[in-house]
Amino acid sequence: MASSKISMGEYLWRRIASLGIEHAFGVPGDFNLTLLDEIYKVPELSWLGTCNELNGAYAADGYARIAGRPAALLTTYGVGELSAMNGVAGAYAEQAGMIHLVGMTSRPQQTMKALIHHTMEPGMDHSIYIGMSEPVRKTHTFLWDDAIMAEEIDRVIIAGVKSRLPVFIYIPMDVVQVQLDASRLETPLDTTIENDRAVENKVVQSILEAIKSAKNPVVLADVLTTRHGGRELARELVEITNYQSFSTPLSKGIIDEDHPSYGGLYNGSVSFPGVAEAVESSDLVLNLGPLLSDSNTGGFSRAVKDENLIFLGHAYCQIREKTYENIHFLPVLKRIVEELKKEPKIYNIPSTHSKDKIQPPVLSSITSGKIVQSYCWQRLGKFLQPNDIVLAESGTAQFGMPDATFPKNTRYITQIFWSSIGYTVGATLGALVAQKELKLPGRVVLIVGEGSLQMTVQELGSYIRFGFHPIIFVINNNGYSIERAINGPTQRYNEVSMLWDHQKMLELFGAREETGRKSKSWKVESVEEMEKALGEMRKEEGTINLCEIVMEEFDYPWRLNAQLVVGRAKAKVLAGSFSAKPPGVLKPN
Amino acid sequence: MASSKISMGEYLWRRIASLGIEHAFGVPGDFNLTLLDEIYKVPELSWLGTCNELNGAYAADGYARIAGRPAALLTTYGVGELSAMNGVAGAYAEQAGMIHLVGMTSRPQQTMKALIHHTMEPGMDHSIYIGMSEPVRKTHTFLWDDAIMAEEIDRVIIAGVKSRLPVFIYIPMDVVQVQLDASRLETPLDTTIENDRAVENKVVQSILEAIKSAKNPVVLADVLTTRHGGRELARELVEITNYQSFSTPLSKGIIDEDHPSYGGLYNGSVSFPGVAEAVESSDLVLNLGPLLSDSNTGGFSRAVKDENLIFLGHAYCQIREKTYENIHFLPVLKRIVEELKKEPKIYNIPSTHSKDKIQPPVLSSITSGKIVQSYCWQRLGKFLQPNDIVLAESGTAQFGMPDATFPKNTRYITQIFWSSIGYTVGATLGALVAQKELKLPGRVVLIVGEGSLQMTVQELGSYIRFGFHPIIFVINNNGYSIERAINGPTQRYNEVSMLWDHQKMLELFGAREETGRKSKSWKVESVEEMEKALGEMRKEEGTINLCEIVMEEFDYPWRLNAQLVVGRAKAKVLAGSFSAKPPGVLKPN
Repeated sequence: MASSKISMGEYLWRRIASLGIEHAFGVPGDFNLTLLDEIYKVPELSWLGTCNELNGAYAADGYARIAGRPAALLTTYGVGELSAMNGVAGAYAEQAGMIHLVGMTSRPQQTMKALIHHTMEPGMDHSIYIGMSEPVRKTHTFLWDDAIMAEEIDRVIIAGVKSRLPVFIYIPMDVVQVQLDASRLETPLDTTIENDRAVENKVVQSILEAIKSAKNPVVLADVLTTRHGGRELARELVEITNYQSFSTPLSKGIIDEDHPSYGGLYNGSVSFPGVAEAVESSDLVLNLGPLLSDSNTGGFSRAVKDENLIFLGHAYCQIREKTYENIHFLPVLKRIVEELKKEPKIYNIPSTHSKDKIQPPVLSSITSGKIVQSYCWQRLGKFLQPNDIVLAESGTAQFGMPDATFPKNTRYITQIFWSSIGYTVGATLGALVAQKELKLPGRVVLIVGEGSLQMTVQELGSYIRFGFHPIIFVINNNGYSIERAINGPTQRYNEVSMLWDHQKMLELFGAREETGRKSKSWKVESVEEMEKALGEMRKEEGTINLCEIVMEEFDYPWRLNAQLVVGRAKAKVLAGSFSAKPPGVLKPN
Repeated sequence: MASSKISMGEYLWRRIASLGIEHAFGVPGDFNLTLLDEIYKVPELSWLGTCNELNGAYAADGYARIAGRPAALLTTYGVGELSAMNGVAGAYAEQAGMIHLVGMTSRPQQTMKALIHHTMEPGMDHSIYIGMSEPVRKTHTFLWDDAIMAEEIDRVIIAGVKSRLPVFIYIPMDVVQVQLDASRLETPLDTTIENDRAVENKVVQSILEAIKSAKNPVVLADVLTTRHGGRELARELVEITNYQSFSTPLSKGIIDEDHPSYGGLYNGSVSFPGVAEAVESSDLVLNLGPLLSDSNTGGFSRAVKDENLIFLGHAYCQIREKTYENIHFLPVLKRIVEELKKEPKIYNIPSTHSKDKIQPPVLSSITSGKIVQSYCWQRLGKFLQPNDIVLAESGTAQFGMPDATFPKNTRYITQIFWSSIGYTVGATLGALVAQKELKLPGRVVLIVGEGSLQMTVQELGSYIRFGFHPIIFVINNNGYSIERAINGPTQRYNEVSMLWDHQKMLELFGAREETGRKSKSWKVESVEEMEKALGEMRKEEGTINLCEIVMEEFDYPWRLNAQLVVGRAKAKVLAGSFSAKPPGVLKPN
């Protein structure tokens, strides 16, 4: 009996749907339209067009962070894939991942090197753009040979799910109708993370022994825990051990902040009083999913000694001074949690939390007058409700929100490592979609500066178009305040247009009476106005809200100032020891 | 005597100013702020911040097309340079060029491979992004070695001016204060285009001989003529020879369309009646600056035989069947024009035009009812005034505007080769800046579809912020009409949000009574309304105008339909002869 056939396009979409994905993001273009036609054959999937490709990539990234699986992003040849590049790079840096599908010129057009639109010059190899994305992906496939297309699609998708890094599938437009063996679809993709069992055993045993003998163990749960699917395990570990627990600027919210064991956000010397001391004095820091970038370590002021460290990463694990390459923390953590649950006494697991809770200081007790940084962020923290998804944009929001105390099960998105401004506006769309797919309760709250908003503002229109109701806070403080803090506080290059009317924005993009989409906007310039607005927000169901918070342009979050002091001191030391001889690894021409 | 010193940063800005450039575009970021500080030392230069980097690149491209010199674009490490990528690629494909300055992490940070924000993973070579841009530039320099910085800056800028392709200068932030020899600035950059003189002599002689013996010579002036500085020469050639002359979709406007010799826009079989016949029957087609892409040749239906062709390109010249590599048309054309002016009789130059003017057909004579494609573009042509700068966005505007007849000295920008939608919204800012710098008369008129506008809409705010007053036509036809024509006319993926209120757009972005920036907007759904609006527009000086033109979603310009017919026929032939064996030049993994 001849096996049944399926078009390459439908095969691809079915594999994507099999991951649980229900929406694909992106922008249509000549070279991906026939692939898009195939999506309608897969009822589990819907197309969700964004205003542009960069925003589409940001949305895909935001989706992945909430859904816990890579998103599908579709762009077109040249113009589309290159526009998305920065968004893809961010998903690489912060390991959100995505499956990036790129529609290309047809194989016949490529073979004759036709000077088709979106190519650049006569005789150009049409596959030239494939090379440009190489550093921002785990792997790719360029679908050319009919015989290996199906297995290539599978290979690349599996790699994307396991690595949490972007992967690319390049699809010449004539390839969409190549007929593949449909029976392959009966075998689900195997995306299980597996380690070398012998080495894993050793790692697990060593950790358990360390735990058994530790006097003062703590859990420091960082962001890659969440990215690699370990969020629930991390929460369970804290729950069953009662160890004092900590988050980082990138992982804030991973541990419930009202949990009795929660100690605070650890960011080296840029932490609230008592936090660094607690982490750094521990004789066993169970550090899950660390991402040790400058702004996630208080400008490299983190001071956890190797002799006290259990580093559980996705690429390697480290137990004190010993490193185990290619051991992924996920199976390890799973076994640790199981073992501790089974035999808590053997491992000296306390039956209750033993430390006093480290209380974050109240930074401001003002009740009137100008809205200042020391008031704003802690107040926004109080505005949040359990299960909210919160996005804090690069800049003051990102350096301010660590001051807030989150309610239970807050999911937090910030991009303090890649730090591409405008990111959260696109990512919010993705978070909204993921929330819908996963039927998560809670609101989606975006906090974005007016300069960052100007980067990607059009995507507000997509929230409205697709019927979402996020809450948007626009921090209006006259320009790029984070840049003012870094250099040139009064230089004109740190200014942005202050002529925009944020109060009309939701209406302009579609939330008006005549469209049946409700919106409400506020502009607050004083504490009194802000308190009033926060009280009024989301009184009405199904309404998109925007609150513009006016703050002073030279008022910066204390964490930003503190980190800059650390950073400048380090830069000075570094510069003193630098010699400008080009090292071999660099390529100055 | 010790020679005087100048900081690398100031040196660079002074060299840029020496090209006549008065504004630099881009977005500030941590790693370019100290370089930006130096711009204020050069009073000839101003900083002009765009809302995002892609729009900045588009603005730089638009600037170059009007100013006739590359623009300066400044972005920051990683996030900025990658966001600009698609815009830079477009400037490469269509040879607008730009000098792209990228601020990087400091040399000490790079040497220690610090996990600074905007890098991607531990141990990463910070220069990795430099490799990603390689295909979209002529050359680059990575300023590392103090000793060669000044000459490297000079080399790269000269290459950018001569090639009209993007060039990149990568600037680690500590390098800005390296002290360079200021006396170099006393020697201006030499950007003269020079050919091998012996070969050039031969080319010039051959062309003059061909002209002498030609019975029916025509001038076909294409877009690279303008890009490489030959616009005025081309116009002079037509003026002195009275040869029948033609433009292309990309070069429209290069020859005054009211000139008695002007025959029309040649686009292979997708041309007005009589045009293709006139070009293709000529025994000597003086083809200046050709760019032979699909949409600039009527889907490759151009039929100029080599035996009748003089191809004057920037990379080579071709005289009938003979090719002369590395001969740039500019010095050649200059000598030809001089020679013909000096000795018109020797070369049988007619003293007046000899052919009847090919009149473009009137496509529609409707005076009421729905606005249709056949009416819209020719009507917009009549709205234009001499010296206007017109930008037609990819899509229906781009395929429609060739129907219009332009008044004298219209400068036209369209990107039908690279075809990145949203491009013109950024490019308009650049065109406005260039117009101001060059003190050109005329208005700047942007024609953009609502889907393309959604890509890059924020830059409207920059027009207003910087005090410009363009006229904006928004073609509102419910989605990506060009894509509907290509594939899936009723598929939902070709839809965009139809909830935006274009009538409030200028106000939202800042042109309101209270800001002192005046605006006026119209929405027209019938011919009567459009006639009325066109009559009212720009009555008031210093007012930014927006006219939303509502058209039917399945109404396409005839040229789009015609080209698709040609393209589909060719694709069918091509597919029939294709075998899916991967050719060596391609890299399927």
